[in-house]
Amino acid sequence: MKIGRKSMITRQWAGTATKTVTWRTSVVQGLLDITPGDAEEIFGDLRADRRRFVVADAELWACHGDQIALFLKRLGIEYGEPPLLLPGGESAKTRENADRVIAEMDDFGLGRFGGVIGWGGGVLHDVLGVAAGEYRRGIRGGITFVATTVLCAVDAAFALKCAVNGNWKNRVGLYSPMNSVCDPVFFRTLNDVDIRDGFAEIVKWALAGDGHLFDLIEEHGARVANEKFQRGDSATRSLLTRPIAVGMAELTSNPWEDETARPSYLGHNWSPVFEPSERHGQAVALDMLISAMIAWRKGFLSRADRDRIVRTIGTLGLKLWSPVLEDRELMRRALWDAALHRGGRQYVPLPYQEIGKVTFCELTETDVQRGCEDLYGYVAAEFSQS
Amino acid sequence: MKIGRKSMITRQWAGTATKTVTWRTSVVQGLLDITPGDAEEIFGDLRADRRRFVVADAELWACHGDQIALFLKRLGIEYGEPPLLLPGGESAKTRENADRVIAEMDDFGLGRFGGVIGWGGGVLHDVLGVAAGEYRRGIRGGITFVATTVLCAVDAAFALKCAVNGNWKNRVGLYSPMNSVCDPVFFRTLNDVDIRDGFAEIVKWALAGDGHLFDLIEEHGARVANEKFQRGDSATRSLLTRPIAVGMAELTSNPWEDETARPSYLGHNWSPVFEPSERHGQAVALDMLISAMIAWRKGFLSRADRDRIVRTIGTLGLKLWSPVLEDRELMRRALWDAALHRGGRQYVPLPYQEIGKVTFCELTETDVQRGCEDLYGYVAAEFSQS
Repeated sequence: MKIGRKSMITRQWAGTATKTVTWRTSVVQGLLDITPGDAEEIFGDLRADRRRFVVADAELWACHGDQIALFLKRLGIEYGEPPLLLPGGESAKTRENADRVIAEMDDFGLGRFGGVIGWGGGVLHDVLGVAAGEYRRGIRGGITFVATTVLCAVDAAFALKCAVNGNWKNRVGLYSPMNSVCDPVFFRTLNDVDIRDGFAEIVKWALAGDGHLFDLIEEHGARVANEKFQRGDSATRSLLTRPIAVGMAELTSNPWEDETARPSYLGHNWSPVFEPSERHGQAVALDMLISAMIAWRKGFLSRADRDRIVRTIGTLGLKLWSPVLEDRELMRRALWDAALHRGGRQYVPLPYQEIGKVTFCELTETDVQRGCEDLYGYVAAEFSQS
Repeated sequence: MKIGRKSMITRQWAGTATKTVTWRTSVVQGLLDITPGDAEEIFGDLRADRRRFVVADAELWACHGDQIALFLKRLGIEYGEPPLLLPGGESAKTRENADRVIAEMDDFGLGRFGGVIGWGGGVLHDVLGVAAGEYRRGIRGGITFVATTVLCAVDAAFALKCAVNGNWKNRVGLYSPMNSVCDPVFFRTLNDVDIRDGFAEIVKWALAGDGHLFDLIEEHGARVANEKFQRGDSATRSLLTRPIAVGMAELTSNPWEDETARPSYLGHNWSPVFEPSERHGQAVALDMLISAMIAWRKGFLSRADRDRIVRTIGTLGLKLWSPVLEDRELMRRALWDAALHRGGRQYVPLPYQEIGKVTFCELTETDVQRGCEDLYGYVAAEFSQS
């Protein structure tokens, strides 16, 4: 084919390849009581290969390590004892930690068709997901991930995407399908801040697509947070399962983020720049607060619903203001990067008409500044009343 | 569902997602003469977005940089001038260089839907592929890769898989579909060693699936290597296009390496441990020589065909022996790792019945040792005759 004055494609070959991935997420009660015969659904076929590469959150292991070790032994799982222990928290979500996991996989002699088990929160989930997705171009034996934090259970655990931080939060990553499970028994040893962090993502899913979930948070959220999900009542179960249901519905319809207008970007437009000054959940909460204010100012949301959102976030013990909101340049950069990520447009989801519905907007700097001012005004008024 | 004495899956959600990737590879004559109107097929839609992140091999840029820069300017491509220049060679195939590309992409403000252009050999191809596959969980605007070495053109450029070295060659990677092109004009400035390196992979494809290609190498290989593919005769063209045809046929039938019995593993069973002592092509050549000897000893291959393989590799200027073949422990580890990669079995492809056909074998240490001894015997006999 002639393609220029003198140039010519002599020969051309084209390829097309399709890949299907499956993943699962389960809420389990009594994971550590599973009998070996029943473990296959979660840990894969242990008769064919008992070897697993195991990694766990160091703090989790300090609390539950003895029981987990006994459990793995009872299932007959062969792993390097003790497992690789990694720190949690945003500062551990690094290339270096992913590389460390890869090096340990290599030392363990993990094959391309080998299996992996992780125990921990969202940071470990992502570090492990990146490592397992890159090691030997992606291990095929399956990743079982036990989400031991609320935040991980209602978000990262089933999200497919995994990343570590570079110059920007989550700059480097890939998609790692996992078989994830959560058991509220592990939430018992979380501290209050961890629980609050998780609740911010629960509020996100409510605003993004489940108005009834928001009602439940309003009515039961503070109590369930205090009880650390340890009571087995219907509201407690719903606060854990409804976010996953909304999230999985969005994700299965848009697994590779090809559609860039995503309701779940709610709370994730400015929050990347609020971290690490603020923890992830708190950053998401602040982001949602600004969004609620902007939505109200634009006439998308009633003052009553706006105030329900702010009040509910407050009753969960999350802060309603942070000095990070005063850095306008940083917030400008956040939307600039969001647009780079979303194909040139911001697609900021804002609550619309009622809680549980969103619309997508392109915001001006004035919109954002006004939103921050409105939030500040609200907080100042509350403060002067109390 | 009851799954144990006391344990229970309360809720479970499952997802399935399919992803289709397409890639292309072309042999082009006169790439740098393409007119802007004809560039779209290779460089994507330049009217929609003229910005591209450009990276090039430093040595290539020293020889051809001025022309490439003029060319990019003529097409109206906007990039950071000069482009990011990276060294080639196996020692540059590192995590650090992939991270450097990612950091530069970030500085450039490359969006998730942005496009990338690379110019260079196999190492740059892989480093760029890893970086582009990880940056923002994989850029979507497409990667155009101009393969400027023979080795890259006949192997890495269309191979989908990309990796950097860890504790083991290619330990860390992923699949990055690209639109690759090669133009023999760039081979002119390669040195003899580079050309020979490329020929080793051409021999691989011949042994793996194209007996006629082997005849062509036998008859024209040494001449075409000397001429650096600069003459436009039919044999020269075939020596470049037939390997790609065999490779693309294998790859499109097995893009994700799910099938672990791959003819193209020929030459790649021990070679990972021969590097970096030996260059990639030389390592592949040594690996094929041992394979030919083992195949002959097992009665798979006639002595005549065995000798044709050895002689042809020799006439291309590749060494028939190296001290690395004397490290039995290293060679044992090579097959051990190959089996970890191939689901527990070695699946070593050996020439079978005729050149261009293979069968898959599990080899004992004795098989391998005998193969090395036979090769040594052949080389010693040749040496004493000459």
